Amino acid sequence: MRTTEGAGLPGRPRDPLPTGARDVLPVEAGELRAAEDALRRAFRRYGYREVRTPVLEFALSVDRAAQEGATAQAYRLFDPDGRVLMMRPDLTIPVARLIATRLTDHPGPLRVSYTGPAFRRPRPGRAEPSEHRQAGVELVGEAGPEADAEIVGLLVEALAEAGLPEFRIGLGDVSVTAAVLQGLAVPEGEAARLRAAVAARDLVLWRRIAEGLDIPEGPRALLAGLPGMRGGAEVPERIAATVPAAAAACARLVRTLDLLRGAAVADRVLVDLGILRDWPYYSGLVIEAYAPGVGEPVAKGGRYDGLGGVFGAPRPAVGVAIELDGLHRALAAAEAIPSAPAPGVVLVGGLDAEREAAAALRRRGVVVVGLPSGDGRADEVARVEGWRFVAWRDGDAYRVRDRAAGVDVTCARLEEALPSPL
Amino acid sequence: MRTTEGAGLPGRPRDPLPTGARDVLPVEAGELRAAEDALRRAFRRYGYREVRTPVLEFALSVDRAAQEGATAQAYRLFDPDGRVLMMRPDLTIPVARLIATRLTDHPGPLRVSYTGPAFRRPRPGRAEPSEHRQAGVELVGEAGPEADAEIVGLLVEALAEAGLPEFRIGLGDVSVTAAVLQGLAVPEGEAARLRAAVAARDLVLWRRIAEGLDIPEGPRALLAGLPGMRGGAEVPERIAATVPAAAAACARLVRTLDLLRGAAVADRVLVDLGILRDWPYYSGLVIEAYAPGVGEPVAKGGRYDGLGGVFGAPRPAVGVAIELDGLHRALAAAEAIPSAPAPGVVLVGGLDAEREAAAALRRRGVVVVGLPSGDGRADEVARVEGWRFVAWRDGDAYRVRDRAAGVDVTCARLEEALPSPL
Repeated sequence: MRTTEGAGLPGRPRDPLPTGARDVLPVEAGELRAAEDALRRAFRRYGYREVRTPVLEFALSVDRAAQEGATAQAYRLFDPDGRVLMMRPDLTIPVARLIATRLTDHPGPLRVSYTGPAFRRPRPGRAEPSEHRQAGVELVGEAGPEADAEIVGLLVEALAEAGLPEFRIGLGDVSVTAAVLQGLAVPEGEAARLRAAVAARDLVLWRRIAEGLDIPEGPRALLAGLPGMRGGAEVPERIAATVPAAAAACARLVRTLDLLRGAAVADRVLVDLGILRDWPYYSGLVIEAYAPGVGEPVAKGGRYDGLGGVFGAPRPAVGVAIELDGLHRALAAAEAIPSAPAPGVVLVGGLDAEREAAAALRRRGVVVVGLPSGDGRADEVARVEGWRFVAWRDGDAYRVRDRAAGVDVTCARLEEALPSPL
Repeated sequence: MRTTEGAGLPGRPRDPLPTGARDVLPVEAGELRAAEDALRRAFRRYGYREVRTPVLEFALSVDRAAQEGATAQAYRLFDPDGRVLMMRPDLTIPVARLIATRLTDHPGPLRVSYTGPAFRRPRPGRAEPSEHRQAGVELVGEAGPEADAEIVGLLVEALAEAGLPEFRIGLGDVSVTAAVLQGLAVPEGEAARLRAAVAARDLVLWRRIAEGLDIPEGPRALLAGLPGMRGGAEVPERIAATVPAAAAACARLVRTLDLLRGAAVADRVLVDLGILRDWPYYSGLVIEAYAPGVGEPVAKGGRYDGLGGVFGAPRPAVGVAIELDGLHRALAAAEAIPSAPAPGVVLVGGLDAEREAAAALRRRGVVVVGLPSGDGRADEVARVEGWRFVAWRDGDAYRVRDRAAGVDVTCARLEEALPSPL
């Protein structure tokens, strides 16, 4: 496994940064950029168009849309008029606000994408980042399982485009769980305790609460095991057979899985009813993506048909956000990041006497790193920065060293020895 | 001139955003992305490698590097331990901090680039943005005019790559001005008043102070007119002839201009000694780029050899930052943004019955916007979002409408009627 450069331990000497903040050095920054660009290429192929929202929002506006306590970790500050501002703790709420206030006259379905940082205060004693860079998509105005399937299929395609060789998409459905609880007439107090148990990922507690309920044994056993149910379409089918009131929600999930079949997607997707969310705006499908070597999900999302209404324009919506740092850790763990030297050339004299040779190469798309004439650091710069070639003037000719091939050649013009495209 | 979508007036109803904050809607966001990508392509051809710094810094760390008062507009907040944090008000200081603390063992010259937002509180009553997206480069470890010339040349190339047809680069030099003041033995108190006059862009005040100085008439006239001096190499040559103590600084500026000659650069570059900076870290060249239709500079930079020392690792450095919103306004004013419809296709049924046809097109790089089967909104979606094609199943065939050409065609397979590359 590669070492991730610049992983930035908090409190390291000569690293005077706030808790949770870190610098990203060139190697990792280049890899993050490549991953981001790949995700955007996938988003674009599906017609998702980028939007940007400001980092600072009114705290009132975000708090109104988020569950009580969900913004407890947000950074808050005052504006000059004494109003409380918030550094956005996620991008789903701001993008929903933008869509509900600025894109109301779109005929729909409306597809938007975004990339940007969200900010959360690290909890005391935890090595959490303060800045979370996310890239995501929202499909607004389509209520059907077809829209759910597009988002899941696009997520799979985007992660694959970024180079991630191995990952799993877990699909839960809060409407299935809600329909089961309602169909079994579980009292609201018990239902709330069950939801809290799942939010805390305490499946033992869930089972204990479920087993204490006064309902027939078959449904009770199903309920007790619900958050542990994983598999394919047989999972919702079994639930529908036991709790007929949940049949519609289950049929919808089966249809989503059906739509995903055929694409090179199905084998990556797993129903997992243990995926519930603490944020209240989810209303149907919930999505998490996992990759080997990364403990947290690399992507999270789902359907939240009620969120737009908070901002005055209710429309069904489904979306997903990819955590860029998580994706990068997953790529590094999978050794899926190319480590070959970049096809650039360190050109001695490129800053002065060989300026025109440098310009000619750049016009042909070659990366040229200029040094002053007579500079002896060319090999070292190429090694430290990972450029493949070193070149210098030698009488009337040039010498070009190919560090990957381990050979030096002489040529009259640099174009002869250097590959043209980037 | 194009209207810029989403220009976000403060306080607009249904636009509940803090003063200075704004949403960026799809058309403008796509244009900003294209401009950013173009700048990064140019940076990359010169071997500049991206770094990222956190939005939140310790206020102490930034204040230490910035002139008194220069961070007065910065957003400040407290961390849980009561330390004052600052949302970075520019990127030059954080990037200098990163280089001085994390990249000290690089043999140099060290080239880094960055893209990201900086944050400043709008001044009361002014329509200033709170978020300033910047893309910039820093060349560290080279003290000579060769490095100055690379940065200026790269700035020209980057703005041209972004599509800006017309712009001017103004070059000042605070070391020339300082050498003139010193060579004429201007007392420190008067020198400070002169600097303050330039910082306030009050050239009338500068002239009055200069004309009151007790120095010989020739040099006094030169000094009085100094911030108004504009032109080519003759400007520093005239100064050196009148004030021999400034000859070295002037020769250096002449050499920078010399190095820029020949490149398609020289005619965009103008010496302008009125360009001085209020931030104290500039030590030599100062750079500003202007474009028609935009009042503020679209790029600012210069040489600041003392900045690294603030963070414990003094190294000469020169750099420039491009204001992305300014660049975008300049592109819009020049009508340099392509307005042809994007070559995507709105496919009726692409969300369900035509899923596989959609997937096949996407594999060939075509943007496919899926609608449910039987959806009547295809033409409207294509019009609103600017896609060129609309396609739908018609019996055993497809109908494809080319909105740019104004024709409908029938084809057996969509690939026949749709252009393959993006």
